[in-house]
Amino acid sequence: MDEFEVEAVGEPDLADPVFVEGLPGVGHVGKLAAEHLVEELDGELVRRIYSTHLPPQVSVEEGRTQLASAEIHAVSVDNVDLLVLTGDHQAQDTVGHYGLTDAVLDVAEEFGASRLFALGGVPTGELIEEYDVIGAINDDDQREELEGVGVEFRGDEPAGGIVGVSGLLLGLGERRDLPAACLMGETSGYLVDPKSAQAVLEVLQEIAGFEVDFSSLEDRADEMEEVVRKIQEMEQGTPTPSDEDLRYIG
Amino acid sequence: MDEFEVEAVGEPDLADPVFVEGLPGVGHVGKLAAEHLVEELDGELVRRIYSTHLPPQVSVEEGRTQLASAEIHAVSVDNVDLLVLTGDHQAQDTVGHYGLTDAVLDVAEEFGASRLFALGGVPTGELIEEYDVIGAINDDDQREELEGVGVEFRGDEPAGGIVGVSGLLLGLGERRDLPAACLMGETSGYLVDPKSAQAVLEVLQEIAGFEVDFSSLEDRADEMEEVVRKIQEMEQGTPTPSDEDLRYIG
Amino acid sequence: MDEFEVEAVGEPDLADPVFVEGLPGVGHVGKLAAEHLVEELDGELVRRIYSTHLPPQVSVEEGRTQLASAEIHAVSVDNVDLLVLTGDHQAQDTVGHYGLTDAVLDVAEEFGASRLFALGGVPTGELIEEYDVIGAINDDDQREELEGVGVEFRGDEPAGGIVGVSGLLLGLGERRDLPAACLMGETSGYLVDPKSAQAVLEVLQEIAGFEVDFSSLEDRADEMEEVVRKIQEMEQGTPTPSDEDLRYIG
Amino acid sequence: MDEFEVEAVGEPDLADPVFVEGLPGVGHVGKLAAEHLVEELDGELVRRIYSTHLPPQVSVEEGRTQLASAEIHAVSVDNVDLLVLTGDHQAQDTVGHYGLTDAVLDVAEEFGASRLFALGGVPTGELIEEYDVIGAINDDDQREELEGVGVEFRGDEPAGGIVGVSGLLLGLGERRDLPAACLMGETSGYLVDPKSAQAVLEVLQEIAGFEVDFSSLEDRADEMEEVVRKIQEMEQGTPTPSDEDLRYIG
Repeated sequence: MDEFEVEAVGEPDLADPVFVEGLPGVGHVGKLAAEHLVEELDGELVRRIYSTHLPPQVSVEEGRTQLASAEIHAVSVDNVDLLVLTGDHQAQDTVGHYGLTDAVLDVAEEFGASRLFALGGVPTGELIEEYDVIGAINDDDQREELEGVGVEFRGDEPAGGIVGVSGLLLGLGERRDLPAACLMGETSGYLVDPKSAQAVLEVLQEIAGFEVDFSSLEDRADEMEEVVRKIQEMEQGTPTPSDEDLRYIG
Repeated sequence: MDEFEVEAVGEPDLADPVFVEGLPGVGHVGKLAAEHLVEELDGELVRRIYSTHLPPQVSVEEGRTQLASAEIHAVSVDNVDLLVLTGDHQAQDTVGHYGLTDAVLDVAEEFGASRLFALGGVPTGELIEEYDVIGAINDDDQREELEGVGVEFRGDEPAGGIVGVSGLLLGLGERRDLPAACLMGETSGYLVDPKSAQAVLEVLQEIAGFEVDFSSLEDRADEMEEVVRKIQEMEQGTPTPSDEDLRYIG
Repeated sequence: MDEFEVEAVGEPDLADPVFVEGLPGVGHVGKLAAEHLVEELDGELVRRIYSTHLPPQVSVEEGRTQLASAEIHAVSVDNVDLLVLTGDHQAQDTVGHYGLTDAVLDVAEEFGASRLFALGGVPTGELIEEYDVIGAINDDDQREELEGVGVEFRGDEPAGGIVGVSGLLLGLGERRDLPAACLMGETSGYLVDPKSAQAVLEVLQEIAGFEVDFSSLEDRADEMEEVVRKIQEMEQGTPTPSDEDLRYIG
Repeated sequence: MDEFEVEAVGEPDLADPVFVEGLPGVGHVGKLAAEHLVEELDGELVRRIYSTHLPPQVSVEEGRTQLASAEIHAVSVDNVDLLVLTGDHQAQDTVGHYGLTDAVLDVAEEFGASRLFALGGVPTGELIEEYDVIGAINDDDQREELEGVGVEFRGDEPAGGIVGVSGLLLGLGERRDLPAACLMGETSGYLVDPKSAQAVLEVLQEIAGFEVDFSSLEDRADEMEEVVRKIQEMEQGTPTPSDEDLRYIG
């Protein structure tokens, strides 16, 4: 197998698609958001990317195996075409992150995508009341439009930069003159966070001009709140339950 | 040395051989099973695969060294030809797992194997009473036949997928249109488990149509039971000896 | 992306420039010194080096991203031309350190640099009263001149050798017949150390024949002293505050 | 720089030289032994091997740097020519171990070496009274000769095989039809062990037919015994000083 192999699964005609990435990361915000688009809007799998830098494993569902891959789906909604990257894995090494991102960008360009959005979460260390969305852009032209839909640009946040495919889509995208933005929902960092995913998608909807139903994400958010409530109950003997007692629950 | 080098040691004529893999893993189930076939049925070494991704070491037996390798043996029994992959090592990195599996598949195809079985164990965390065999397949056509000999397909088990060469034989095998199945014997995960290896081989026998004597595996199982009994005795002061007190003994 | 890619940003004419390196390291001495030159003397960015061996990330400032890179700036002062390498990252693996250094040396040679200085810190484990500068050279011809400006050469110091790009600029530089010296300011190793950076720059000034204003470094040194003082106050209940109670503060 | 680069430093004519390896390892036995040959018998440096898989660093002695390398010296004694590999480093990754060994074997063959000895230590976990030398060979023809000079071949010792360049010289040497033996001096594993190095060299002398003076090794052994004595004194309050209280001292 080559280091990166792209398998063509479908060949839909897409009109100026918007590329959206949501791989695993903080609070699974990006992954939840991207999967919600694919599931809710009946996405069509168009490409699988295999790589010797992905984990050497297959997943198993009802006994049927699937080699580790990143998956790109076509989603059409309200006259808007999306290409949505999802998957269960990040690359396993530095060289792999760069190569996987290059392979993804090749697919994005092949389908004529001229704009990219990387979705993710930014950890705050506290339970969130109001879900702000922090932005990062690889091209100043995008700033005004994003601020117009409520995206915040803040000093040097996120302090550690943006790592993995999300960060490299902006970094390598810039080298290809592809405008890309990272939309990061605030999230505690301790829990899978469907509300943060919804906040990110609400911004994306406004920019790209489509609407998606959020009820399944809201159901999932209710389940997570139930989890939080139970954890707090278990601690009720202590006067002020501290965030630090929460463990990451996925 | 190239990244992967295949040394031809023997060139037997094999008729539609069944390829069987058993490298080190959980409970050494796959390795015990594969080695049992080679030893009990007088296998002939046909290929050694060396790799710069295998550990940089030689093993030593009576002073004589052997460079780390994966070994493929031809085994003939009851008019059935088998190709059996054994060895003491997994690849040392992600790229190595993929490359080693590709090298193994090249040999399998060179000898005309059209069907692959990866043998292994699946950890349950408890001592096993009845040794079920869990299956995973890279081609739905195999499901009925395997269920017919008692293999179980269960929801999303194993939950973490199948890693290493075992998993990739299915994943990369599928990309070559080679039907492959993984047969995983239930095992506690704490001990080398000859009984689980026997359970896996009993399934393989039925599918491939051969019979092998299990007395040496049974002897080894008796030894392991003696080990377990001694451990339990050491703990007899405590009312219910817990599995968690067992350490992995290989 | 290739393993190493050099992006040409500017093409100034430089006369026999002196190459100066200051990447992150002990006490951030080299990085502080190099950045001081670029900021104080209005350096012009001339090259960015990207690499799949640098961290897979972008930094973010006011929402604008920048792909991880090493940056080379042209600085002109007092009829002396400098090429100054700065950046936030070291390479992520062994192969990357060698390759990044080779890419850097290619740029140095392209601009006609015939002399290299790697700037860094050498940890002493104690707070420093007088900031000595320890030297290392890849060519004995440089010894006398450096000793003449107060650089000390000491037995086998630094005991562990010099690692990363700093060390390799000397090691790989020698293989290209480029004379290179490493100037290492003594530093406790616990704190970012602007005074050590100044000591290193004072040596460089004398050798290369230029002068730079140190007031901004001195301000930063005052801030660090304030930090140290506060830490000591927090410990005032104990009779002799020990260095070991200091944590690295950057 | 290429992954492996061999620098020719000297070109002596050697008659059927015996190749001897002694890189860092258990008890520094191999390294002590090889360095003793080079120092005591006025070896001439003939090759340096640089590699991007060696640590990215320079060593420093009196201010002068030396890029990390493996060094091959020619040593002539009693009409016997030796090629002696020494150095301060092992390769940093699996691929590097294989590649470095291949580069070393290329040099050995270039000088016409038809026999190789890898020197090292085998840890026993106890202080040694009598220093046995354990052997491993990649060619059964060597067994009788080595047994004749007191080398012991024992079941499956060393249990974990032989790792690094020492092991691969035998493993990759066999693939080139170069007979190679590993001579392993027993050593506690806790201390640098000049006596074990001497035991190994005494075997090598007999096989290769030369004599070397051991007084400097013996002096160093006396120093180490003094260290052991002091450690035991420090523990004299306890009835039976245990080996486990010894720390590795190099």
